Amino acid sequence: MLEKLKREVLEANLELPKCGLVTFTWGNVSGIDRGKGLIVIKPSGVEYDAMKEGDMVVVDLQGKIVEGSLNPSSDTPTHIELYKAFPHIGGIVHTHSRWATIFAQAGLGIPAYGTTHADYFYGEIPCTRLMTDQEINGAYEKQTGTVIIERFRGLNPDDLPAVLVHSHGPFTWGNSPKNAVHNAVVLEEVAMMAWHCKALCAAESSGAASGEAPTAGAMRPMQQVLLDRHYLRKHGANAYYGQSAAASSRESSPVSPRKS
Amino acid sequence: MLEKLKREVLEANLELPKCGLVTFTWGNVSGIDRGKGLIVIKPSGVEYDAMKEGDMVVVDLQGKIVEGSLNPSSDTPTHIELYKAFPHIGGIVHTHSRWATIFAQAGLGIPAYGTTHADYFYGEIPCTRLMTDQEINGAYEKQTGTVIIERFRGLNPDDLPAVLVHSHGPFTWGNSPKNAVHNAVVLEEVAMMAWHCKALCAAESSGAASGEAPTAGAMRPMQQVLLDRHYLRKHGANAYYGQSAAASSRESSPVSPRKS
Amino acid sequence: MLEKLKREVLEANLELPKCGLVTFTWGNVSGIDRGKGLIVIKPSGVEYDAMKEGDMVVVDLQGKIVEGSLNPSSDTPTHIELYKAFPHIGGIVHTHSRWATIFAQAGLGIPAYGTTHADYFYGEIPCTRLMTDQEINGAYEKQTGTVIIERFRGLNPDDLPAVLVHSHGPFTWGNSPKNAVHNAVVLEEVAMMAWHCKALCAAESSGAASGEAPTAGAMRPMQQVLLDRHYLRKHGANAYYGQSAAASSRESSPVSPRKS
Amino acid sequence: MLEKLKREVLEANLELPKCGLVTFTWGNVSGIDRGKGLIVIKPSGVEYDAMKEGDMVVVDLQGKIVEGSLNPSSDTPTHIELYKAFPHIGGIVHTHSRWATIFAQAGLGIPAYGTTHADYFYGEIPCTRLMTDQEINGAYEKQTGTVIIERFRGLNPDDLPAVLVHSHGPFTWGNSPKNAVHNAVVLEEVAMMAWHCKALCAAESSGAASGEAPTAGAMRPMQQVLLDRHYLRKHGANAYYGQSAAASSRESSPVSPRKS
Repeated sequence: MLEKLKREVLEANLELPKCGLVTFTWGNVSGIDRGKGLIVIKPSGVEYDAMKEGDMVVVDLQGKIVEGSLNPSSDTPTHIELYKAFPHIGGIVHTHSRWATIFAQAGLGIPAYGTTHADYFYGEIPCTRLMTDQEINGAYEKQTGTVIIERFRGLNPDDLPAVLVHSHGPFTWGNSPKNAVHNAVVLEEVAMMAWHCKALCAAESSGAASGEAPTAGAMRPMQQVLLDRHYLRKHGANAYYGQSAAASSRESSPVSPRKS
Repeated sequence: MLEKLKREVLEANLELPKCGLVTFTWGNVSGIDRGKGLIVIKPSGVEYDAMKEGDMVVVDLQGKIVEGSLNPSSDTPTHIELYKAFPHIGGIVHTHSRWATIFAQAGLGIPAYGTTHADYFYGEIPCTRLMTDQEINGAYEKQTGTVIIERFRGLNPDDLPAVLVHSHGPFTWGNSPKNAVHNAVVLEEVAMMAWHCKALCAAESSGAASGEAPTAGAMRPMQQVLLDRHYLRKHGANAYYGQSAAASSRESSPVSPRKS
Repeated sequence: MLEKLKREVLEANLELPKCGLVTFTWGNVSGIDRGKGLIVIKPSGVEYDAMKEGDMVVVDLQGKIVEGSLNPSSDTPTHIELYKAFPHIGGIVHTHSRWATIFAQAGLGIPAYGTTHADYFYGEIPCTRLMTDQEINGAYEKQTGTVIIERFRGLNPDDLPAVLVHSHGPFTWGNSPKNAVHNAVVLEEVAMMAWHCKALCAAESSGAASGEAPTAGAMRPMQQVLLDRHYLRKHGANAYYGQSAAASSRESSPVSPRKS
Repeated sequence: MLEKLKREVLEANLELPKCGLVTFTWGNVSGIDRGKGLIVIKPSGVEYDAMKEGDMVVVDLQGKIVEGSLNPSSDTPTHIELYKAFPHIGGIVHTHSRWATIFAQAGLGIPAYGTTHADYFYGEIPCTRLMTDQEINGAYEKQTGTVIIERFRGLNPDDLPAVLVHSHGPFTWGNSPKNAVHNAVVLEEVAMMAWHCKALCAAESSGAASGEAPTAGAMRPMQQVLLDRHYLRKHGANAYYGQSAAASSRESSPVSPRKS
């Protein structure tokens, strides 16, 4: 069942190591068939090199295994919560990618500092609060979903397809498993650059403190009007970036991020 | 038409991912035929892997599509402004390459700190001012060109073939599309090293503040006389680096930056 | 003799350059046959490209060469001390991997800042004290083992399979040579992220000092309850990560860390 | 003439891009035949991909071209000064490798912070003083050699086979062209780690300043006794690292640094 979605989920999972986002088995991708209410997700702790389409696990929105001989990812309850709360998303990615995880460990969101960010994320990428002892000792993976959803009160997950889980790492999502991986790659890029912007401004301020350079102060987010312009030229009704649907069939090729 | 230039522009575009300068479709290269007044530029949002010579778009200096079935890069109006204002340049590159973009996001130019910089750029690589709300909400991509040109008042674009657009990223240029890519690679190298010089001096000063190390203070630009020497030994009438024209035919081989 | 262990030790050694953990010959892996009381270890100063199974050296727990025509690694006495003091370990790795070595040179342990750390290391990865002149001028490599063991008083090496030797670099261990390499890869990941967390918090505090951002203060270790939860879901009697033994035979495939 | 040395010099030059030490043509290696008093050096500005054995240029110690149709590297006069002043060296490398160049641009030496450094460099890697206007405007490349030699008054170039030229980049040397490249690789490793040690200690001190962490202060060099022990176990009469001459023939294989 769901052979096409299984293939998409497998391919999206295999992109994670290719894109430099995961070490060992530290990541997982899922996809959902909204019509059937079924999720396809990576099995837990299986190496990427050995993973096959038939290893993908099908679970329902209560977490019951519908098909598959392997255990689903231990993060499955988090995925389920997000699918239930964010009705438009079709795929979810979780990794411990380095730069996003650095911000998550520090408990800091990633401010919008430039147009690279604005082309994909409509504002600061939020970080969740610390979880309580009860949440950690209880249904931990499900509660992880709960604190993400709590953090998105007042935020639109369709315009902000990423979150940092405090002391843990990022989740991203999108309209498909592949699109969620795409957003995971962008998240890592903007996190890397945001980290270095913050440190650069701190270094400039430090020079200033000794009276030798003009003060830079703390790094400030980009202008709201520029954020609007860039986000809306790629998203929404008046988008004008890229090709029209007719001409752009080749755009739906596989994820192919920067070769590092 | 312009088959040779199309091939050059395609090849230069394909160098961007090879050189680690772009993620996904985040970059574009153009070239100009000064005699005909026509520009060849990458189509918008098409993946590098799928791009073919025939996908290149030909536009005139008013931005009208002269040949091509795809939309030109959304940054085309910026390229056009630069070709009109800088009469000697033959190719332009725009990327969101990491280190240059970090400086752009922080709104800081890249000072000349050493001979690597001086061999290519005759002074600090400038950063543009913040754009006004009117500029951003108006003909944004054209205005991006306008603020670059404004920033180059009193500067010679032939001796300083790069700029950082505030909160955005770098543009570089050169006498050909290939040469513009070459300068984009160098820009990334000098940006990476300049970032680490600034942070190193800040760290040294911090040690000094606690009375344990001699003060380093803010990082200072290199000596003007050394900048002159290095820039002029590679550029201008008395250049003596490399081979004479007769012997150096092999130098015009493809861009081949550091393997990382 | 010990042909299977020799092959395992050779393969584990060859993983070191593949995983980006060693430059030149700067690393070594050993394994032990607890029944026979014999250690198999890499020869000293031989290039990885040229190393063969038959080059592996067999030594006993007194350091006597039992088989092999090459000198064993100069760090052999350190390995021996660790095998004698830590009775459950089956393999040991020593490298000068960059991020772990940076902490070692600074004389700082690596605090547990997130779940990536907690999945493998049950608390801060300790750094040894400075060695005395007598220790350095005496049986230096053996004394290196002694200070590691001293540092582990009150710590369980089975739950904390890594140490940083002050001014030197990391040792990791595990239930097999391969598992020790796995831990060496994870150590490098968590060290890289911990470094950037510390610097990020310092940069945030610096912005705060000039009154422009909320203070971040020094980076704090993760919550103990979260450390418990993550370590214990992968280790110990109630582990629930991955597949059960029957289903997980494919998990014992070769080390395959993040492609960088 | 000097066919064997030409081959060695070509191979050593080709190692530079493979080891990630050079971008474009930013580096050069030479070797010397002490008996004949002749130097073989890379031609100026020729791409590594296109370079052939016959392109190597032979010059004498007065800088006169003895054989070769191409211009020698513009840095040839620097190489000549070093060969004249340092009688035991057989090969020289110049690069703009990133981490070493960062220290050179900041005008800072690289202190010995750990055993990786101590295994190759017997103390701090020195940085030259700023050159005077007369030196820069005069025989600049020759004067570059002169300031290096001035910096080595009281230092033994055989025990400290590297220098940083202020605002420029590193030179390394060794008993052969290949050995000089080996030292250039090690220099880059220790520079990378030293940079991060300095910044790590600054970050720790910053936390301390806000009263939340114990002070780390400025990073201190390693203990002299440990530096002695490590340098002397690999160098000099009582060295015991590696294999004896008879067993170690395989050690003279090509440079093969860390795969990054």
